[in-house]
Amino acid sequence: MIRFDSDYTEGAHPRILEALKRTNFEQTNGYGDDVHCRRAAGLIRRECGTPDAQVHFLVGGTQTNLTVISSILRPYQGVLCACGGHIACHETGAVEAAGHKVLPLPDAEGDGKITAAQVREAVERHMSDVTREHTVQPGMVYISQSSECGTVYGKRELEEMRETCREFALPLFIDGARLGYALAGSGGELTLREIAENCDVFYVGGTKVGLLFGEAVVITNPALTRDFRYMMKQRGAMLAKGRLLGVQFEEAFSDGLYYEMSAHAVNEAARIKQALTRRGIPLLFDSPTNQLFPILTREQQEALSCKYVFSFWQHVDEQRDAVRICTSWATPGESVDELISDISEL
Amino acid sequence: MIRFDSDYTEGAHPRILEALKRTNFEQTNGYGDDVHCRRAAGLIRRECGTPDAQVHFLVGGTQTNLTVISSILRPYQGVLCACGGHIACHETGAVEAAGHKVLPLPDAEGDGKITAAQVREAVERHMSDVTREHTVQPGMVYISQSSECGTVYGKRELEEMRETCREFALPLFIDGARLGYALAGSGGELTLREIAENCDVFYVGGTKVGLLFGEAVVITNPALTRDFRYMMKQRGAMLAKGRLLGVQFEEAFSDGLYYEMSAHAVNEAARIKQALTRRGIPLLFDSPTNQLFPILTREQQEALSCKYVFSFWQHVDEQRDAVRICTSWATPGESVDELISDISEL
Amino acid sequence: MIRFDSDYTEGAHPRILEALKRTNFEQTNGYGDDVHCRRAAGLIRRECGTPDAQVHFLVGGTQTNLTVISSILRPYQGVLCACGGHIACHETGAVEAAGHKVLPLPDAEGDGKITAAQVREAVERHMSDVTREHTVQPGMVYISQSSECGTVYGKRELEEMRETCREFALPLFIDGARLGYALAGSGGELTLREIAENCDVFYVGGTKVGLLFGEAVVITNPALTRDFRYMMKQRGAMLAKGRLLGVQFEEAFSDGLYYEMSAHAVNEAARIKQALTRRGIPLLFDSPTNQLFPILTREQQEALSCKYVFSFWQHVDEQRDAVRICTSWATPGESVDELISDISEL
Amino acid sequence: MIRFDSDYTEGAHPRILEALKRTNFEQTNGYGDDVHCRRAAGLIRRECGTPDAQVHFLVGGTQTNLTVISSILRPYQGVLCACGGHIACHETGAVEAAGHKVLPLPDAEGDGKITAAQVREAVERHMSDVTREHTVQPGMVYISQSSECGTVYGKRELEEMRETCREFALPLFIDGARLGYALAGSGGELTLREIAENCDVFYVGGTKVGLLFGEAVVITNPALTRDFRYMMKQRGAMLAKGRLLGVQFEEAFSDGLYYEMSAHAVNEAARIKQALTRRGIPLLFDSPTNQLFPILTREQQEALSCKYVFSFWQHVDEQRDAVRICTSWATPGESVDELISDISEL
Repeated sequence: MIRFDSDYTEGAHPRILEALKRTNFEQTNGYGDDVHCRRAAGLIRRECGTPDAQVHFLVGGTQTNLTVISSILRPYQGVLCACGGHIACHETGAVEAAGHKVLPLPDAEGDGKITAAQVREAVERHMSDVTREHTVQPGMVYISQSSECGTVYGKRELEEMRETCREFALPLFIDGARLGYALAGSGGELTLREIAENCDVFYVGGTKVGLLFGEAVVITNPALTRDFRYMMKQRGAMLAKGRLLGVQFEEAFSDGLYYEMSAHAVNEAARIKQALTRRGIPLLFDSPTNQLFPILTREQQEALSCKYVFSFWQHVDEQRDAVRICTSWATPGESVDELISDISEL
Repeated sequence: MIRFDSDYTEGAHPRILEALKRTNFEQTNGYGDDVHCRRAAGLIRRECGTPDAQVHFLVGGTQTNLTVISSILRPYQGVLCACGGHIACHETGAVEAAGHKVLPLPDAEGDGKITAAQVREAVERHMSDVTREHTVQPGMVYISQSSECGTVYGKRELEEMRETCREFALPLFIDGARLGYALAGSGGELTLREIAENCDVFYVGGTKVGLLFGEAVVITNPALTRDFRYMMKQRGAMLAKGRLLGVQFEEAFSDGLYYEMSAHAVNEAARIKQALTRRGIPLLFDSPTNQLFPILTREQQEALSCKYVFSFWQHVDEQRDAVRICTSWATPGESVDELISDISEL
Repeated sequence: MIRFDSDYTEGAHPRILEALKRTNFEQTNGYGDDVHCRRAAGLIRRECGTPDAQVHFLVGGTQTNLTVISSILRPYQGVLCACGGHIACHETGAVEAAGHKVLPLPDAEGDGKITAAQVREAVERHMSDVTREHTVQPGMVYISQSSECGTVYGKRELEEMRETCREFALPLFIDGARLGYALAGSGGELTLREIAENCDVFYVGGTKVGLLFGEAVVITNPALTRDFRYMMKQRGAMLAKGRLLGVQFEEAFSDGLYYEMSAHAVNEAARIKQALTRRGIPLLFDSPTNQLFPILTREQQEALSCKYVFSFWQHVDEQRDAVRICTSWATPGESVDELISDISEL
Repeated sequence: MIRFDSDYTEGAHPRILEALKRTNFEQTNGYGDDVHCRRAAGLIRRECGTPDAQVHFLVGGTQTNLTVISSILRPYQGVLCACGGHIACHETGAVEAAGHKVLPLPDAEGDGKITAAQVREAVERHMSDVTREHTVQPGMVYISQSSECGTVYGKRELEEMRETCREFALPLFIDGARLGYALAGSGGELTLREIAENCDVFYVGGTKVGLLFGEAVVITNPALTRDFRYMMKQRGAMLAKGRLLGVQFEEAFSDGLYYEMSAHAVNEAARIKQALTRRGIPLLFDSPTNQLFPILTREQQEALSCKYVFSFWQHVDEQRDAVRICTSWATPGESVDELISDISEL
């Protein structure tokens, strides 16, 4: 079986493994206080154009989300996010376990994104409520780039969100588990600079973009940096051999490897998308990244499922379901060729 | 101004105050370990027909909800409730602050209630999800009797809910902040016995039904009784002079005072309802209890608002809003007479 | 039996009950937004000489401690306090349940108090630890006035503590559950002004000083006032009929009733102390307030225990235990006369 | 500089890296649901002689401790542990952030261990307290094997602890971050079987024993297994590419690699210990594992510190401090030879 069901089915890019091997017997301090973490942080700061940002390395996404969010909110505050957002749906209530309500906003466009107008409306509604002390106060905004639906916030959308958040003094946090794919899919509109400029804190996802594991948190708002490492340690998010994270990100941000891996996945997805469109198969969302959501009939699903693994996404009608097809840094071009050929024969 | 905006605008029934005065210089143990708490618990157990139930006295509703819920759930579990339920909307995230997600169910009928079928559907959906470990597990059900909309779960509805909860091993918790009004409004269908038989834990509301303050938690499921007093103490819900709660509930359940106070409010509300209907004013919900939700034009609202205080409930259309009219154990018949007369002249 | 085992064995001063009765049928807003709460807050601000302080009314001590502490600390911070402090020992881990470690300091003098030097030492030790991110950061200081041992921080001690706390930017919180007795026992050295001037937040205890219940939180540091009512609501600490608290504190701070009640208890305790000393019975602590800790032989304990109730405090040696004798606003002079006479015959 | 300051200064044993490389392009399910995790779990179950135990793979120690502990305790319960235990001192209040008090027991022998008698005494004291509801209930016991001081609980000690815990229905949790070194240092007295038989849940530490990272939790008590994966996910402790953990533990438990790595560290430490003893340098604890705590004069420290890195442990007297010397699976024999030679010349 050829798997297209997620972007974390393989290990890591060979260069990443090689870097781990090369540095294996170096003796370093633990907990991220080592030369590799420092160099990796420097490389990321340079890419972001933010010489003063704090960069911290954590292991995985849920851990990162809960650590960042609980470091920002006061106890009675909640986090605004899309109703389908990862923290709202797929983290077993990690944010609530840290004491905070997730405040879901309806997904108006059905594309996994929220708008600045929605944030404004939610905050103004809260502020105008005379009994607002009886309700959870919106304390920050969380968005995913790319979103759960593979869609991307454009530069203008980000700027608007940022402006609205500033107006209401709401920190804006971008979950970048798939940030590489979002940048690659933005058609040149977005680089790390635009991301860094348009939020208070975000992370550069490694787990889904070619590293064994690892997420690089970048805090650009100095008001949010205080004692972040205490938070990491308390949440079990400070890796003893922190240098493993440093080594991986150092390699990923040397010679553009991170971008290369991201572009590969997005290009392969684009080829599949083209094949689907050619075959007349509609897409649930028009995603420019590594996730595609074609709407397939039961027969089409059966035909493909003897050879490929997808994940079920949602029922569409009596005859059809949307499925998720995911490429990654590791997807072999030949697998895509094969899939394209099989799509054309559906 | 005559206030009809809530059922806690006054102090307590004179008999309650008298009982506090009568017992004022008795010396008792603190923390609910006194003869008045024991007698009150005995009276309540008798009314419920549950000689083995545990009865605990707490001060207010939010405190009671968070103490009961956090004593039942495991960390990764959430509580199913109506999307407009008090714990979902009006407790500043108290349940989340205790670590648990509130799992709102849509209010299908628009009457503030949820159904057994909704609970079944939510649990079965969770259980059939292969990635369910990534989502919050439904761990109990919370309903309010009467609901936020003044409506009442009938006997059959409660039995169905209870049955479904048993099937899925979900404790059922009834928020009875307005339980007296629900019983009085049920037209004889419900007594404390039916309530006690059809849930695992509930409370008999005192704050809104003629006491200064106080909620009597009745735990009928022995599996939920363990160490409940530790939970109370930890949550700041164990009153030092616990006997104040005992004295009040003892008085309320002597000679039927609790029922008498409840019936008064419901009867006065029924008179207002009749006047509204006579005048052709529609009601947002058909509530049989002490809360009415008439839909008034702006002109009607203005006409009444020079003399009466209501609370705004929601916009209905360009011309009209629903408002909440609340009677209580303390509402003077003359105030209602006056209101009725003014309604007839709208 | 005559009880001297605590200062919350009775209800409330008759004037307090009378005030509740007098105001019983007034219709007011809920949740502390009423004329009585406003007036009571004004009276307390005036006594404190802090026209800008926020005053909030809560129901009980544990609730107040957990609400104040969790409103101040960041998640990785803990609260410094005496190892025998109420939050460290007698609140079932309420502070921990809110996510924070209690950082106990040894009770060097054995009198229930901690010193500015101890606070300095703890903070400097933390700051000088290169791995401090792996340990809980001291985030505030909690002291009780009077302490668990009935002792009182003198003006100079408070000023030193305050100064040290300022130096390290640690908010200082004074638990004043027995504040009235501390002021009365300070021999004129302390008034509410000195308390207000020498901390960031404190409370004026009502439950143990003649009210039915109630603690008035006074926040003098504007940095700590933000959104405190959200915190109260979330913790179940916002009483629906908030005016009950306002009415009681309004009465207590009219015509000096609070001070009168406090002085009564302290004077009666002083008479007992004199009798003990005369009889040659040693005291475990030299407390100037309403709590005495005489060291009695088993025979002495037996002799008194047929008529009086004390509480056991601790074993002292083979023959003797320290017990706690507590007077209160409610202690009848005749009971004390009787006890004095019986002490003299031991 | 040659570093002896911790057992996590290097990466991983080459065979571990090799296994990661070998399996790198396999496509597997995420989140630990893969063939490598299954095989690794099987190997560990076999070593433990517990065919029915649950085995879960987590990333690091603090994460594991907080996940296991918060899955066991009810909200008002705390965890008994040595006052110097890792959870008490070096996890930034992670257990408290999960809502639970750590209940430290004094380190009677000064060796980092607690005794069954201490546990019994603490529980009996709690149970005999009539106001125990006002205090945190001991809910489980946590010990570290080897301890923070490098010492090891012998078989008889473990059995006694286990017996006492059973008597009081307290789950016993063994933190095995350095379990390999404890087994190797036990002189054959202990194997994984003895560990598994004498507790309810423990973990086999990988991070400090030759893996890149990873801790294998073994739950032998079926009552504690329920929904553990939900807990993992909620705490951010479920690695997306879970197979990385499976691959590493699979390799570690093939051909005895785990034992081999452990034995290497312990043997090298023993050689250093011998050299210290020969030179007349006292040890703070008599540790049979990979951690040594020699007491060195300032001169001796200076002499060694130009070439070696140790960590400071504690002041002993005016002239001397205890330092920690740590060997690991990675310590080269030649480095030890050099150190031995330098010790002999002190």
